[in-house]
Amino acid sequence: MEHQTLYTSSVFGKLQADANRLELPEMHLRNLIHTPGRLEAFCLETRGFLFDFSRQRLDETVLSHLHELAAERDALSLFRGMMRGDKLNRTENRAALHTAARSFSGEPVLVDGVNIMPDIKRVREEIRQFSSRILKGEITGSTGKRFSHLVVIGIGGSYLGTEFVSEALKAYSDTGIRLYYLSNVDIHNFGRIATEIDPEATLWVVISKSYTTAETMANEQLAVRFMKEKGLDPAGHIVTVTAKGSPGDVGGNENKVQRLAAFHMFDFIGGRYSVTSAVGGVPLSLFLGYERFERFLKGAEEMDLHAVTADVDKNIPLTSALISIWNANLLGYSSQAIIPYASPLAKLPAHVQQLNMESNGKSVSASGTPVPYPTGAIIFGEPGTNAQHSFFQLLHQGRTVPVEFIGALVPQYSTYHSRSKGVTNHQELWANLLSQPMALALGKEDPDPARCFSGNRPSSSIILPDLTPESIGRLLSFYEAKTVFEAFLWGINPFDQFGVELGKKLATGIRKEMADRNQNEGHAFGSDEPIVNFYLEKLFKNR
Amino acid sequence: MEHQTLYTSSVFGKLQADANRLELPEMHLRNLIHTPGRLEAFCLETRGFLFDFSRQRLDETVLSHLHELAAERDALSLFRGMMRGDKLNRTENRAALHTAARSFSGEPVLVDGVNIMPDIKRVREEIRQFSSRILKGEITGSTGKRFSHLVVIGIGGSYLGTEFVSEALKAYSDTGIRLYYLSNVDIHNFGRIATEIDPEATLWVVISKSYTTAETMANEQLAVRFMKEKGLDPAGHIVTVTAKGSPGDVGGNENKVQRLAAFHMFDFIGGRYSVTSAVGGVPLSLFLGYERFERFLKGAEEMDLHAVTADVDKNIPLTSALISIWNANLLGYSSQAIIPYASPLAKLPAHVQQLNMESNGKSVSASGTPVPYPTGAIIFGEPGTNAQHSFFQLLHQGRTVPVEFIGALVPQYSTYHSRSKGVTNHQELWANLLSQPMALALGKEDPDPARCFSGNRPSSSIILPDLTPESIGRLLSFYEAKTVFEAFLWGINPFDQFGVELGKKLATGIRKEMADRNQNEGHAFGSDEPIVNFYLEKLFKNR
Repeated sequence: MEHQTLYTSSVFGKLQADANRLELPEMHLRNLIHTPGRLEAFCLETRGFLFDFSRQRLDETVLSHLHELAAERDALSLFRGMMRGDKLNRTENRAALHTAARSFSGEPVLVDGVNIMPDIKRVREEIRQFSSRILKGEITGSTGKRFSHLVVIGIGGSYLGTEFVSEALKAYSDTGIRLYYLSNVDIHNFGRIATEIDPEATLWVVISKSYTTAETMANEQLAVRFMKEKGLDPAGHIVTVTAKGSPGDVGGNENKVQRLAAFHMFDFIGGRYSVTSAVGGVPLSLFLGYERFERFLKGAEEMDLHAVTADVDKNIPLTSALISIWNANLLGYSSQAIIPYASPLAKLPAHVQQLNMESNGKSVSASGTPVPYPTGAIIFGEPGTNAQHSFFQLLHQGRTVPVEFIGALVPQYSTYHSRSKGVTNHQELWANLLSQPMALALGKEDPDPARCFSGNRPSSSIILPDLTPESIGRLLSFYEAKTVFEAFLWGINPFDQFGVELGKKLATGIRKEMADRNQNEGHAFGSDEPIVNFYLEKLFKNR
Repeated sequence: MEHQTLYTSSVFGKLQADANRLELPEMHLRNLIHTPGRLEAFCLETRGFLFDFSRQRLDETVLSHLHELAAERDALSLFRGMMRGDKLNRTENRAALHTAARSFSGEPVLVDGVNIMPDIKRVREEIRQFSSRILKGEITGSTGKRFSHLVVIGIGGSYLGTEFVSEALKAYSDTGIRLYYLSNVDIHNFGRIATEIDPEATLWVVISKSYTTAETMANEQLAVRFMKEKGLDPAGHIVTVTAKGSPGDVGGNENKVQRLAAFHMFDFIGGRYSVTSAVGGVPLSLFLGYERFERFLKGAEEMDLHAVTADVDKNIPLTSALISIWNANLLGYSSQAIIPYASPLAKLPAHVQQLNMESNGKSVSASGTPVPYPTGAIIFGEPGTNAQHSFFQLLHQGRTVPVEFIGALVPQYSTYHSRSKGVTNHQELWANLLSQPMALALGKEDPDPARCFSGNRPSSSIILPDLTPESIGRLLSFYEAKTVFEAFLWGINPFDQFGVELGKKLATGIRKEMADRNQNEGHAFGSDEPIVNFYLEKLFKNR
């Protein structure tokens, strides 16, 4: 990368001057948004996916400087390189090819000179056939009962994205499959699911690239034991999604239980980017049917193609990433709220929390030097209007938090037309979706300070035409592209996650103390940390 | 209040000097936590509820200055006044008596000279009798079918806290009642519930103090229409929780549908503090049985009594609030993560988001002058270990976010003892609960910057003995008391929420535009805001 940091970009000084200028009273959003042609100038659209940033605190000058920044930081060429198979994940010496998982173009994608597309298409085809045979009842549980419950065992990237999509498209699920996520090692998670499923009709999908993830292995072991207690053969109830040759691959390790099938994941797709791979593919094809999963993939591919081909001034994910940098590093906002005015998108904030915060919560550049500025923002959110009755008080009169509002023109349920106050529920929802960004931007003067609104609080609005599989695919891909564009602008690697290592390492030492005491009641806890020993004694006294 | 702002407190200068001192390398947490007797000095306990702040960035000097601050700000006497009925909610001229809702002491509590306790006890008794008759099948649906589905219609404070408690105690639910929350006006919310319930066996609890909340009224109307379509008499399927004499009170307004019963809420208990009133009482008594609801109340009362009687150096919620001020206003942290290592507490972060951000996301003092410093923090969280596989990367290597870890010594499911890597699932969970605060505090040097951890990242740990109704009650009350103590220290009013008014007002204008077009296809949208008119056209084109 030519420019080591944002600060060494030649345009950064201009942006700092812009940021000072934006503090002038006449640059209040209530003035900016009343500039003629405001919406037209600050709104982009592709295939009905509309990105409106007219309520962000910027003007044409800022925008053109941000475009310069994108050019200086090579954002678009890095993105092209990513889709072509460049090893942008330098610390792990890997490509980052989640976009290949939804490529239907027929173009080869080379990693170390080898075309990976045949493998990707093979896995897709295996998922299509397997899900179809399960849903037709050609493959049944070990007692011959048709599968009607699906438990996904996986944590982090192995479930958050899939959960977002399955919740978003639940209204379309007609497969008769009930879907559960067993992510946490917390026994409450397993205990609750065990009371709700029919063991004979339950298919377990165990997802782990390495097949060594502590939580996932502990939960698989509980599931195996549970099936054996019910007199069932676990081999007929478990499929895996894992790397080729891992201990969870079929035939990979004969000490392990046998499994119904294994679907491969690849080292060039990281967990938090894996929804369009077999990680999402197996559960979603069983829950929604493979056809809908493929429509979802095609929506994601559309947004990929937009992201890689649209010029910077038309490029939605890149523009959105530039605004993140503007808000974080020039205006100084530390967080970002995502508020979908669409209940089916309720799990989107949790997915983007992982995707973005794990990718960009970094303090080291892609080339290994400390970065001197804040990177990834704190992301949180709940659906509107719920959030209005929760933390919006703070957004209006407390700390400033840039908001991303999301709405859909057409709801999934079109059968309810009863009106309250002269409008349908969907219209009532939209009245709020339209009023909130305005209230944040405009503010309101009042002689009573408690009723004063300072306004000038920025937001974007993303409008989807509907909540079909294609639209959800575009939305997923939008957030992936936005995340990697942010990282390219900051000059960091969005594909590694060394920040989780230290806690894991310390847990290993603590686990060993526990295992030793489990083995031998006389074992004295010997952690270097007195505080840890105090809690270990307390925990074991309460066994 | 004697001291208008934090800044005018005489001790504030000392705290600023402390904050500078804490920046010295030798004050890194890895040194602080190895001070002899660290845990003993920075850990408090009441009735098994343990609050460990040994991993916060403070020492004995800071703590004694914080104690001085509490005294200067009259925090404890304000709290006593609150529980006694003082009208601390000055902007609305109301008392704030959520603590009275769980008082079993027999002491009178006076508001305007009138003892409110008889009314509170009457409502509790009505809930006890009503829930018992429903659960015994003495009251049935209009076709004689026993109630087995419960839909709570309410938004914000009318459901978030109840949802937290019902999720936390779900493992104990043996009433056969399936519980749903219909909060959002979003038609997807209603649409999904309508496909899952048995209308004849469904009881709807409509919760709104004023009985005018737009979302709740729209949803009640959908429910009434739905029941009529199914040939059911809504009067036999709806109970309300509302203010005496509101349009939802029984006999309150003869134009409205009749209802099975109405339970009163009082103007001295705000929505976000109302879980222990009829707002939580009606649904929780039906879902868990009244006995467990009362055990929950008694746990909450215990924490109230601790908060009001414990001296500042022993007072858990007050200490926790002082740390909030230290972290927000002296160390400059803008957010706070809540990470329960207990899946049943999964909804706690959403509840505290509302409770705390709506209470303390303010910019005006209780006496009506602008406050010159940031107040309430941005609160977010997900259960551990899930969160470790999501945003913990950022917590370890990105922005610094103080964390509140929560664990329980004894889980609700004690029947699963299978071991993975020599430990049970509950022990594995604890290995992580113990390792994460240590990793955040200690950090780790590494020649490779990408594998470096700066450490010095603060956290508290709350340890509950178990997840019984009493423990959940204490936890709920802890967060309520912490929130109001923070407000007392900042000098703001935690009981009003004028920040939500502007958005509502703008929505009213937009709703009217929609209703006019619904009435008359020829109506031209006439909002003052061109952006709003653009979206209205778009929405109506896609009807």
